[in-house]
Amino acid sequence: KRPFSQTSPWRLQTKELDEDALKSLKVNKKRLMKDLHHTCQWGTGKRWGKAETETGMTRLALSDSDKQARDWFVKTTEDLGCKVTVDEMGNIFAVRPGLKNDKPATFAGSHLDTQPTGGRYDGILGVHAGIEMIKVLNENWIETEYPVGVVNWTNEEGARFPMSMSSSGVWAGSIPLAAAHNLREVHPGTATMAEELSRIGYLGSVAASHEATLMAAHFELHIEQGPLLEMANKKVGVVIGVQAYKWLTVNVKGRDTHTGTTDLKSRADALLAASKMILHSHRLATAHNALASTGILNLKPGSTNTVPGDVSFSLDIRAPADETVASVLALVQQDFPKIAAGENLSGLNDGGTPSLPCTVSITEDFDSPATTFHASCIDAVTRAAQRVLGPDGKSLTMEMTSGAGHDSVYTSKRCPTSMIFIPCREGMSHNPEEFCKEEDCAIGAEVLLHSVLRFDRMREV
Amino acid sequence: KRPFSQTSPWRLQTKELDEDALKSLKVNKKRLMKDLHHTCQWGTGKRWGKAETETGMTRLALSDSDKQARDWFVKTTEDLGCKVTVDEMGNIFAVRPGLKNDKPATFAGSHLDTQPTGGRYDGILGVHAGIEMIKVLNENWIETEYPVGVVNWTNEEGARFPMSMSSSGVWAGSIPLAAAHNLREVHPGTATMAEELSRIGYLGSVAASHEATLMAAHFELHIEQGPLLEMANKKVGVVIGVQAYKWLTVNVKGRDTHTGTTDLKSRADALLAASKMILHSHRLATAHNALASTGILNLKPGSTNTVPGDVSFSLDIRAPADETVASVLALVQQDFPKIAAGENLSGLNDGGTPSLPCTVSITEDFDSPATTFHASCIDAVTRAAQRVLGPDGKSLTMEMTSGAGHDSVYTSKRCPTSMIFIPCREGMSHNPEEFCKEEDCAIGAEVLLHSVLRFDRMREV
Ligand SMILES: NC(=O)NCCC(=O)O
Ligand SMILES: NC(=O)NCCC(=O)O
Repeated sequence: KRPFSQTSPWRLQTKELDEDALKSLKVNKKRLMKDLHHTCQWGTGKRWGKAETETGMTRLALSDSDKQARDWFVKTTEDLGCKVTVDEMGNIFAVRPGLKNDKPATFAGSHLDTQPTGGRYDGILGVHAGIEMIKVLNENWIETEYPVGVVNWTNEEGARFPMSMSSSGVWAGSIPLAAAHNLREVHPGTATMAEELSRIGYLGSVAASHEATLMAAHFELHIEQGPLLEMANKKVGVVIGVQAYKWLTVNVKGRDTHTGTTDLKSRADALLAASKMILHSHRLATAHNALASTGILNLKPGSTNTVPGDVSFSLDIRAPADETVASVLALVQQDFPKIAAGENLSGLNDGGTPSLPCTVSITEDFDSPATTFHASCIDAVTRAAQRVLGPDGKSLTMEMTSGAGHDSVYTSKRCPTSMIFIPCREGMSHNPEEFCKEEDCAIGAEVLLHSVLRFDRMREV
Repeated sequence: KRPFSQTSPWRLQTKELDEDALKSLKVNKKRLMKDLHHTCQWGTGKRWGKAETETGMTRLALSDSDKQARDWFVKTTEDLGCKVTVDEMGNIFAVRPGLKNDKPATFAGSHLDTQPTGGRYDGILGVHAGIEMIKVLNENWIETEYPVGVVNWTNEEGARFPMSMSSSGVWAGSIPLAAAHNLREVHPGTATMAEELSRIGYLGSVAASHEATLMAAHFELHIEQGPLLEMANKKVGVVIGVQAYKWLTVNVKGRDTHTGTTDLKSRADALLAASKMILHSHRLATAHNALASTGILNLKPGSTNTVPGDVSFSLDIRAPADETVASVLALVQQDFPKIAAGENLSGLNDGGTPSLPCTVSITEDFDSPATTFHASCIDAVTRAAQRVLGPDGKSLTMEMTSGAGHDSVYTSKRCPTSMIFIPCREGMSHNPEEFCKEEDCAIGAEVLLHSVLRFDRMREV
């Protein structure tokens, strides 16, 4: 047995704890949920139920309410004894010292930003579970071998600045800093990410880089956002990877003309062409067992009696395998120009007057290839889940691939990473009615705690 | 011969003029075009050519630039000796006294507002031709039998406040004042028409009513906005009526869900359903020889990775006969709910994964039945065109029905009305590149002048 550390305020070292002692380490469910709902006062969204907490969230990245949640995060983690740093992307790292403080921390992380009509759990739960982990360690006087930390990543959603996981992407060296800084908000389209970081006081001085902020590992608790755990009656998903996805912007150009004086054959109707493309992308996705979705569509000039000459829309293509996404993309690139030109692809033109050609341009804004998480982190999560769930652990757990992207995708490029999923009601997410049971939130947070502790004791350096 | 009027500054009465003298009354083409381009400094739009005047217009109703154009209109017509009144809809009436001033004026009128990406001629030419008419009367010392006037109607385009001809509609008693005052702008959707009238100082005190501002007749010069005159090599269109149209708002409700975790069959994708409806409306229009157009589409929440749960779009349906518009509307009302519910109408679902149902609601915002103009005004225009065009007059003129709505639609409900069309390049309108030859503008203005003078001498009261 090693002596108690002289420098650390927490003196019971993890190496001293046996399995039974570790098993008894529990998160405080009430406190976890109280904290979570407390921070949901900043950016409260649409009400869907009667209970006080039955509202969604509207906390777009770098908005005023995001600033308030961030300020709370910084104050809370500092009060818990963490050292807090903010990098050039506004990522906030809170580190609790361990025995060997010259080594990088093991992180728990997620994000506090939400969709425009998001819920209270997506991202938020993961950050709160990280804070709860620190609280449990503190109140049990536990000194970890290495430092442990909690990270709040900026603009994970990609909802306000249209690139998901943009700031973990910069940290990983996968997205250039300038590209992320220059991202312009979707609505109303005036501010850039750098401007907003600076405006809310979170343009930090630390380089946004895995070399400036080292990570020994990254564990992320997240709600599944899909229906699989609930349908299978499981409590914990051990996430072994993330499916591939690409984001495109499609711009269709026709000609502004009068709706009352321009006969159908003399039109170059960019919206009619875009409608056909959206329908076609749905058919392509169906044929390839992939997903294709349009979440943003803007048109110009936007007048009832003008045929729109300019339509832009987003296209989000996903599939488990990179090859599938590539195949759908290739068909989009091949077929959209034909649709614009007026070819009768899959009978889209049947029964409609042929008209003048439009043109189309397609840009790829974002690419996240299929991700595989790290075997030792997956193992840590599997064992932690069994520790938390007890004898039934095996039957209440399942391995799964994430449909959504997460900051863990980018951390996995630079350090061992894996994720923990918990079920959410009807798989609903990116919706105000997103809901997770308190019990499940607590199970997830406890698995996170034990995953980090297990990794802390297993790690080599 | 009657004595010169003692009270009028213009002493040569029209009754004294014979055909030959009338024939020699010409508009000043240079002055007309100079004035027109002068006022296009307010709201100058997109440049499309090198010449100074080769830009479009962006002068939305009741915008700051519309106020500047209005101020110019008021000052100019007052300086020409007109009495100017402004009604509660911001319609501006400028009246030049005649011999019998206890009787209503014969008006020339159109509008100074434009589309978001409009041209320099649509509406603007008609107002300027009215002012040029006053100038020609003044400089030739002509006293008309009855007063003549020029009217600038508010928000004819319906582009900013989504109801076309809204203010002539109130004047005619066809649209309730409150409905027009409460119209909310399309973008960004904050201000109402009443607020904007008041803000720019054009919420007049005169009742917006055909009973408060009497009209003996309304003549409107306008560009055709379609290709028929140009294709037929005609100089003047004698407009005998206007086709029917209706404006609808279609709202599709689905469910916000995550694009990465929601499989295709678990979606209620409001944009996919809306795309099918837009395609279907194009097919319905084709089948009925009608027009169907969507110029506005808004969706919520508007995030790349959220399947939109809420889409609203405009639908503009037109046809020469009321019955045709009614038939298309009936099919829209019958078919859109089926498309929303997931029925495979005309193979729209072929090759796509069936998904959860959406719902749809359709509201009719505006209805303009087919209009027939007044025989004696049509006659006045026909004769005026022959007077202006000379021996070739008959072969350079054709009767036609307007595809676009105009304030003359509403004036025709309360006073004898007709319109004069001139050709525009390639029939292009609601487009910055809208263009009319100076020569054609002058011909149109001259036909307007002579139509008004002819009517002035023909009228009974
Ligand atoms: N967790 C989550 O919804 N992330 C957004 C990134 C994505 O689009 O998958
Ligand atoms: N002239 C014109 O473009 N008016 C707008 C009304 C319509 O939509 O037809």
